[in-house]
Amino acid sequence: MTHKIAILGASGYTGAELVRLIATHPSMEIVALSADRKAGMEMAEVYPQLRHLDLPRLVTMDEIDFDQVDLCFAALPHGLSQALVRDLPERVKVVDLGADFRLADPDDYTKWYGNAHEATELQKTAVYGLTEFNRDRIRDARLVAGTGCNAATVQFALRPLIEEGLIDLDRIICDLKNGVSGAGRSLKENMLFAERSTDVQGYAQGGKHRHLGEFDQEFSRIAGRKVEIMFTPHLVPVNRGILADCYVEGDPKAIHNALVARYEAEPFIEVLPFGQAPGMGHVMGSNFCHIGVIGDRVPGRALVVSTLDNLCKGSSGQAMQNANLMLGEDETTGLMLAPVFP
Amino acid sequence: MTHKIAILGASGYTGAELVRLIATHPSMEIVALSADRKAGMEMAEVYPQLRHLDLPRLVTMDEIDFDQVDLCFAALPHGLSQALVRDLPERVKVVDLGADFRLADPDDYTKWYGNAHEATELQKTAVYGLTEFNRDRIRDARLVAGTGCNAATVQFALRPLIEEGLIDLDRIICDLKNGVSGAGRSLKENMLFAERSTDVQGYAQGGKHRHLGEFDQEFSRIAGRKVEIMFTPHLVPVNRGILADCYVEGDPKAIHNALVARYEAEPFIEVLPFGQAPGMGHVMGSNFCHIGVIGDRVPGRALVVSTLDNLCKGSSGQAMQNANLMLGEDETTGLMLAPVFP
Amino acid sequence: MTHKIAILGASGYTGAELVRLIATHPSMEIVALSADRKAGMEMAEVYPQLRHLDLPRLVTMDEIDFDQVDLCFAALPHGLSQALVRDLPERVKVVDLGADFRLADPDDYTKWYGNAHEATELQKTAVYGLTEFNRDRIRDARLVAGTGCNAATVQFALRPLIEEGLIDLDRIICDLKNGVSGAGRSLKENMLFAERSTDVQGYAQGGKHRHLGEFDQEFSRIAGRKVEIMFTPHLVPVNRGILADCYVEGDPKAIHNALVARYEAEPFIEVLPFGQAPGMGHVMGSNFCHIGVIGDRVPGRALVVSTLDNLCKGSSGQAMQNANLMLGEDETTGLMLAPVFP
Amino acid sequence: MTHKIAILGASGYTGAELVRLIATHPSMEIVALSADRKAGMEMAEVYPQLRHLDLPRLVTMDEIDFDQVDLCFAALPHGLSQALVRDLPERVKVVDLGADFRLADPDDYTKWYGNAHEATELQKTAVYGLTEFNRDRIRDARLVAGTGCNAATVQFALRPLIEEGLIDLDRIICDLKNGVSGAGRSLKENMLFAERSTDVQGYAQGGKHRHLGEFDQEFSRIAGRKVEIMFTPHLVPVNRGILADCYVEGDPKAIHNALVARYEAEPFIEVLPFGQAPGMGHVMGSNFCHIGVIGDRVPGRALVVSTLDNLCKGSSGQAMQNANLMLGEDETTGLMLAPVFP
Repeated sequence: MTHKIAILGASGYTGAELVRLIATHPSMEIVALSADRKAGMEMAEVYPQLRHLDLPRLVTMDEIDFDQVDLCFAALPHGLSQALVRDLPERVKVVDLGADFRLADPDDYTKWYGNAHEATELQKTAVYGLTEFNRDRIRDARLVAGTGCNAATVQFALRPLIEEGLIDLDRIICDLKNGVSGAGRSLKENMLFAERSTDVQGYAQGGKHRHLGEFDQEFSRIAGRKVEIMFTPHLVPVNRGILADCYVEGDPKAIHNALVARYEAEPFIEVLPFGQAPGMGHVMGSNFCHIGVIGDRVPGRALVVSTLDNLCKGSSGQAMQNANLMLGEDETTGLMLAPVFP
Repeated sequence: MTHKIAILGASGYTGAELVRLIATHPSMEIVALSADRKAGMEMAEVYPQLRHLDLPRLVTMDEIDFDQVDLCFAALPHGLSQALVRDLPERVKVVDLGADFRLADPDDYTKWYGNAHEATELQKTAVYGLTEFNRDRIRDARLVAGTGCNAATVQFALRPLIEEGLIDLDRIICDLKNGVSGAGRSLKENMLFAERSTDVQGYAQGGKHRHLGEFDQEFSRIAGRKVEIMFTPHLVPVNRGILADCYVEGDPKAIHNALVARYEAEPFIEVLPFGQAPGMGHVMGSNFCHIGVIGDRVPGRALVVSTLDNLCKGSSGQAMQNANLMLGEDETTGLMLAPVFP
Repeated sequence: MTHKIAILGASGYTGAELVRLIATHPSMEIVALSADRKAGMEMAEVYPQLRHLDLPRLVTMDEIDFDQVDLCFAALPHGLSQALVRDLPERVKVVDLGADFRLADPDDYTKWYGNAHEATELQKTAVYGLTEFNRDRIRDARLVAGTGCNAATVQFALRPLIEEGLIDLDRIICDLKNGVSGAGRSLKENMLFAERSTDVQGYAQGGKHRHLGEFDQEFSRIAGRKVEIMFTPHLVPVNRGILADCYVEGDPKAIHNALVARYEAEPFIEVLPFGQAPGMGHVMGSNFCHIGVIGDRVPGRALVVSTLDNLCKGSSGQAMQNANLMLGEDETTGLMLAPVFP
Repeated sequence: MTHKIAILGASGYTGAELVRLIATHPSMEIVALSADRKAGMEMAEVYPQLRHLDLPRLVTMDEIDFDQVDLCFAALPHGLSQALVRDLPERVKVVDLGADFRLADPDDYTKWYGNAHEATELQKTAVYGLTEFNRDRIRDARLVAGTGCNAATVQFALRPLIEEGLIDLDRIICDLKNGVSGAGRSLKENMLFAERSTDVQGYAQGGKHRHLGEFDQEFSRIAGRKVEIMFTPHLVPVNRGILADCYVEGDPKAIHNALVARYEAEPFIEVLPFGQAPGMGHVMGSNFCHIGVIGDRVPGRALVVSTLDNLCKGSSGQAMQNANLMLGEDETTGLMLAPVFP
């Protein structure tokens, strides 16, 4: 059986990544692609690398006949998914790649995103899309909220440690190195090649990054108390990938054991032998997440390093993994593409 | 039916690319991986991005039981395939990714590679592996000689034009921009990141590049007279990809028409609308080749631009395409991966 | 004596490069910096790398008191210099880095830039700023028109050959590899890091690039007949640099001899030994131009390779060299900075 | 007066950087350049970007007449400076860019570098070359030990804070992003362009990096107790630059104030306004160090970010700054080159 898929926001990087993944997915068919400003264009004009595919022309969202759609990926700018999903036919399943339904509490949403939520009823029903930790609920969900790409990378490293009480909750420092595609395709001076290619720079330091809303929500809930990590993302001159260095206080071997045990059966999470750390380039173009643990020379201090491809496992690959579950497919279908290297 | 595959020279980039492609190929199984200097290591140590795969440990070629092998990919340094293939059991099919069997004439081989050929009988039987032009012979071959990556890129642009007599054979200038992975994984000072990352530099200019042996052989044979193109490759700071600018004298529209007609039915060759040229980034990680034709302001001058991923369509993807044919599989099996972008 | 300098368009890359050069120039003082959209900002906000310098705040052009200015560098978008220079006090010398005064013939200007020239009297008096070929006229000029960066790179390679009748004028093909800073700091989707970093792509192929106006003007004048070169620029993922491969028909040794003789006394032009070609990375951050000549395997075909830093020797360095002459300074003052490598 | 300079190890990146700096230094003359494996070559063959300079041919160290040398820069592999400096004429001043004399205690040296020190008497007299903190002793020194590049970057951020007791000494975490030139020009597989260009990877994590010897020595001495920071360097795909994120516990405003006060009169250290952080690209090619302080959302947590060019301020620029002092020149002579951007 072939599932009929619509991608909203198909002209952005996560939209194009979804098309790439569906191109070799055996049971999904793209029936609609939307893009507000580029409506009317062929996808091959917007993304020449998809030229070999037979794809529908880009349209506005209004032009889509959602009765023909089984599942809809929404890769829209923050804020646009709320009213949209609210107004879709109930039978259309939705995987939202944006931030609109990540935070369960309307006040949290307003705190981090500035505006009131427009679909608070839906917000309550949305399932947080970190597949490896919400698999059963995702299977039955109508609406899944994809996680932030930073949020996914760090949670894979830290959730099992917080669940098992292995680290000091007041001293978690996460220093991330981020490929630039996470900033999307919008035009900003600091995203020009000439500005980025010989630079590394932090941003949203000091607790201003919106993904902290997710960290606070998830880690505090798991810990049963307020947890506020210190978090610094950095732009590095790479297209894809996030490498998270998580500095924690706890026993390194116990930490490693907990991660190995937790992810042993997971198809997409690879825990390295103790003392080894992954590189960002080890997962490019794939849905895999590699995690390593290193003990410091000073006992009780550990470094947990986690890496994934922000466009794939951090966003569109995660979305596909969730869509597979929601549609009754095997979770890994179309997602076993090996990383591209070099 | 699953075909049993051996990869010789698996620790090089083309070897790793073969593993990547086989990872999602439905009917190939890797039974042996060889690597001289790295024998004994796990593939995950040599290529951490392949960590999720269950692969045999690297061994020396001597340790391989070729009775268990249906087809062998030889991704060895120039010169090493000759004796090896000669001594293999006749039933083992071979796709050679190196240069040992590309030139049919032993004198040509010696002219360009310096040494006498060690398997001149085999050399006569090897089929030149430019799939789109030798499909039928490849299907029945025991030994297929993969083309040079530059040779493939330029031939896709020019073969139909020479076959149809559309261009001046004495005035063909090919200026290539080459991703650095074409130089392989060997240690050379000029291949260090710090040397390459802000540089673009030509090499082997003036007629010294060995791929000219292939150009001379193929173009002269097709034209029925001596053809000697002018050819300059350049290292550009990109991992994968070749972009070939071919400057020719002829009618641009007729050239475009000939390419469109020739490649209409080809699954991997995309000819762009007249007046458009592809970018190297449009094919990364894929088996596609994009070709464009642009007419100059001066009538009778044309630019034909061709691009492909040197590790895939220019080498390992081509090898896989040929192996599919040799094994009776559909030619495109496992090769429809969409390019990775950005 | 200290010369009082104004830089118009200081927020662009060529403007910033002028500031960099003046920072260690012993006899220039910046008295005004203009930037339309960024007027009111400190230069350190616009270019944090200039933070250590004591610079005037950015203003609009109207706010500048030109009575306090000896020489004005105009690094403005095409079209804006014409009225501006016309209305400046006659005693203010002007080096224009834009295209407004490069073409002596108003019709040529209109043909390539689309609009009528607004200062045709001035246009007649402007001296074409290719220093090494117009040194005496530049010394006495009030208005010097900086050349296009591509135009400079190719002219250094070819002017002596055309002057001496050493090459076939109907068969000149120039294939250029261009660092992205040549496109300036304006916001275009194809200039984003994620779009450029793994791509090489030609643009304005087929005779559409505006620098052809300069080539046609200069080469035709020198040759005494119409000369129309074939010219293809390409974006490569490098910030600075142009590498020009010029394919010509002529005797390679004679070509090399002519270039050696012509540039022997030039402080900024280095001709390599016969058979060697320069790399783009050999001149980064400097005012040097490196040129090499290679003979092809087919007699009578030659490759002349020329490289310079588009922001320096191709633009702001050239402007400074001309300003030095106009102000009675030694031509090399402040310009002997060695290239940065790696 | 012109000082006669020898550079030992001139074929490495720091050696070439010294030549670049001396090229525009008004009172230094290079009289000898040594390079073991490349002795006999012209510098222009080894570094084509220095082609315009009139430099002595590379020789072995034995061939140098040290009686003609005033000051010698030793940019040698670790271990080679010890015997060399011991055997030089006493009147030759030495700036050692390697690690041989950084650690005052022979046991510390052996602990971090594995072998016994061969010149322990000299080791006692060497002055640690962090100019801004040892200026007076450097002025009178015969032998100055250049700091590690990481060690310099982090010490600029943290020394004033430790001196003034502003931060928790048991909770200092330094996460560094390092341009690859820090690894030098030696041939390693993981330094190839294809391996590095799309990767970010930590190394020597967990307390194994040799620069920790310097941190432990300096910070413990200043604090009057044992201080062991947590330190993780990372390779990022950039040629030059180190960006250090230092996570500390203390009052952010007090920290900022201390840094502003400490560096107010320093010509090469720029402290940004509170709440701003520098980027690695802001200092490329220069001798400047930019430092920023950001307070976290949780009171008492601060991020101090420091950046410099590892080849310049982190190594050869620092060496030149020290040589200026040792030779009685103004400390900034030849070092006011503005950073190159883009």
